[in-house]
Amino acid sequence: MGLESELIAWLRENLPVGPGVDVALGDDAAILAGGGKQVVTTDLLTDKVDFLVDEVEPEQIGHKSLGVNLSDLAAMAARPVAVFVSLVLPQRGTKSCGALELAKGIYRGMLPLAKQFGVTIAGGDTNSWDGPLAISITAIGETTDHGPLLRSGGQAGDWLLVTGRLGGSILGPHLQVEPRVREALLLNEQYKLHAGIDVSDGLALDTWRLAKASGLGAVLELAALPLSEAASELSKQDGRSAIEHALGDGEDFELVLAVSNHEAARIVRDQPLGIPITKIGELTEQPGLRQQGATGKPTPLEPQGFEHGGKTWRPNVKGQA
Amino acid sequence: MGLESELIAWLRENLPVGPGVDVALGDDAAILAGGGKQVVTTDLLTDKVDFLVDEVEPEQIGHKSLGVNLSDLAAMAARPVAVFVSLVLPQRGTKSCGALELAKGIYRGMLPLAKQFGVTIAGGDTNSWDGPLAISITAIGETTDHGPLLRSGGQAGDWLLVTGRLGGSILGPHLQVEPRVREALLLNEQYKLHAGIDVSDGLALDTWRLAKASGLGAVLELAALPLSEAASELSKQDGRSAIEHALGDGEDFELVLAVSNHEAARIVRDQPLGIPITKIGELTEQPGLRQQGATGKPTPLEPQGFEHGGKTWRPNVKGQA
Repeated sequence: MGLESELIAWLRENLPVGPGVDVALGDDAAILAGGGKQVVTTDLLTDKVDFLVDEVEPEQIGHKSLGVNLSDLAAMAARPVAVFVSLVLPQRGTKSCGALELAKGIYRGMLPLAKQFGVTIAGGDTNSWDGPLAISITAIGETTDHGPLLRSGGQAGDWLLVTGRLGGSILGPHLQVEPRVREALLLNEQYKLHAGIDVSDGLALDTWRLAKASGLGAVLELAALPLSEAASELSKQDGRSAIEHALGDGEDFELVLAVSNHEAARIVRDQPLGIPITKIGELTEQPGLRQQGATGKPTPLEPQGFEHGGKTWRPNVKGQA
Repeated sequence: MGLESELIAWLRENLPVGPGVDVALGDDAAILAGGGKQVVTTDLLTDKVDFLVDEVEPEQIGHKSLGVNLSDLAAMAARPVAVFVSLVLPQRGTKSCGALELAKGIYRGMLPLAKQFGVTIAGGDTNSWDGPLAISITAIGETTDHGPLLRSGGQAGDWLLVTGRLGGSILGPHLQVEPRVREALLLNEQYKLHAGIDVSDGLALDTWRLAKASGLGAVLELAALPLSEAASELSKQDGRSAIEHALGDGEDFELVLAVSNHEAARIVRDQPLGIPITKIGELTEQPGLRQQGATGKPTPLEPQGFEHGGKTWRPNVKGQA
């Protein structure tokens, strides 16, 4: 077990239940109690894990850092309101720019996304040090009258839908996060959704998390996975199949949704998003994750993926609807 | 101008006004619009700036990190609700413990304070890397029916009051932050307060900030400053006067309040806190910061202090009450 997983296990044991917060266990964001409309998420991005500071533009780092946080809000069907940015800057800057230019570039990279989604960069804190770049963003959103979308609301027999296309994000798309905020709000308003998660760590792993949070299992239909161009490109480079890349690469920042079969069929028929939304499997009474090939019975599928999302933790404060 | 100050100046110019947030310019926390009761603050603490990871206990780091954030909420007279913790851990740990033990110790150090103030550690994110320790905490609080306490509400002629005693925090007290949450809530409920700030960067600098945010100046009565034992102790060690330490050391995490003279006299007479509350000066029409000795006219006083609070920034979104 890695350092982060061990810490999370310890935190779940040792952090007390407190008032004021209905925390969705392992969900994409915590829900504040009271009005019950506010959700909060925190994501920490560091050099060499989430980006290579010497190989990308500061603007790309800013875009990605804000984007992944907005993607967490999208997964809860929450409207972004405000973000708070903590920046630890390497004093010597990067290969190509000084520390101040790095910081400005990071913020410049956030601005278009902030504008697009009407979110205010409302505060933050900055230190510089003799160490690498780290960015921590806390994003606050509001759920709508249609409620928050949780991981735990899935029902057996639900279809699993995914927005967009999957795989190969390391070739570039991981830096160009397009958080599915509008898509989540539109779907949550016009259809009855049961559960949702964003694909940050890999389709297989994140689908398994949604199923598990719902007390269920899942079957993924491999032939149905919507493959990205990057997945095919990467497949040519490394010989692993595009489907494998779609299952395990992560950082697609698409939404996986669990919806009753009737309602899901309507969504797939309507195609209301301007980007594809595709049936990729079903939730099952049988626990665990399985794959369905073109013929035969489902076989076990390892919930592989990039484990860095496992480091985002939330204590188990309350059961959720 | 330092890196952080330059960045803040740039941010104030370049960050757009957004909806959803009434941001108190340069205040201790941002105020979310809408219900108008929620305030949010972010503080980033790093090794070698805010603590020496090899010379203190992990529990002390955790206590301080949470304490300084709660102190920011206290300065707004807000009740703490939830905190979100981002932790960047040095993979090799510290001189005396591994990375996992460091992380656990940091959380263990937060728990008593969280319990004391009824705040839920509601989520977070953790990375480990080949770099130093950094902790970013975002704290969410709720203001009461008596409203938030802002820096900008001071009026000419207001008395300046300070809780507790000042100076010499580097000798130890800076690690033992006692955020004045209860004191702020009690005073805000039982008396009419005009403005407030917490002393994180030094009495002179923070008083000047409060005065400036109120469009005023301030006179500090040097003989009236309540000196801590640590201030006297440090004075013996370095030959600077205890008063100088009280004015400039910072990290006292006491509250400076601006209150009408009549109401302030009542507070000083009542002594309702269990810790001292002392008149230390007045707000003046004349801008700038001045000191009043035992005799003679006030003379200019440099708003010196530890500049690290200057790195916490907030854009100028709206004027404030």
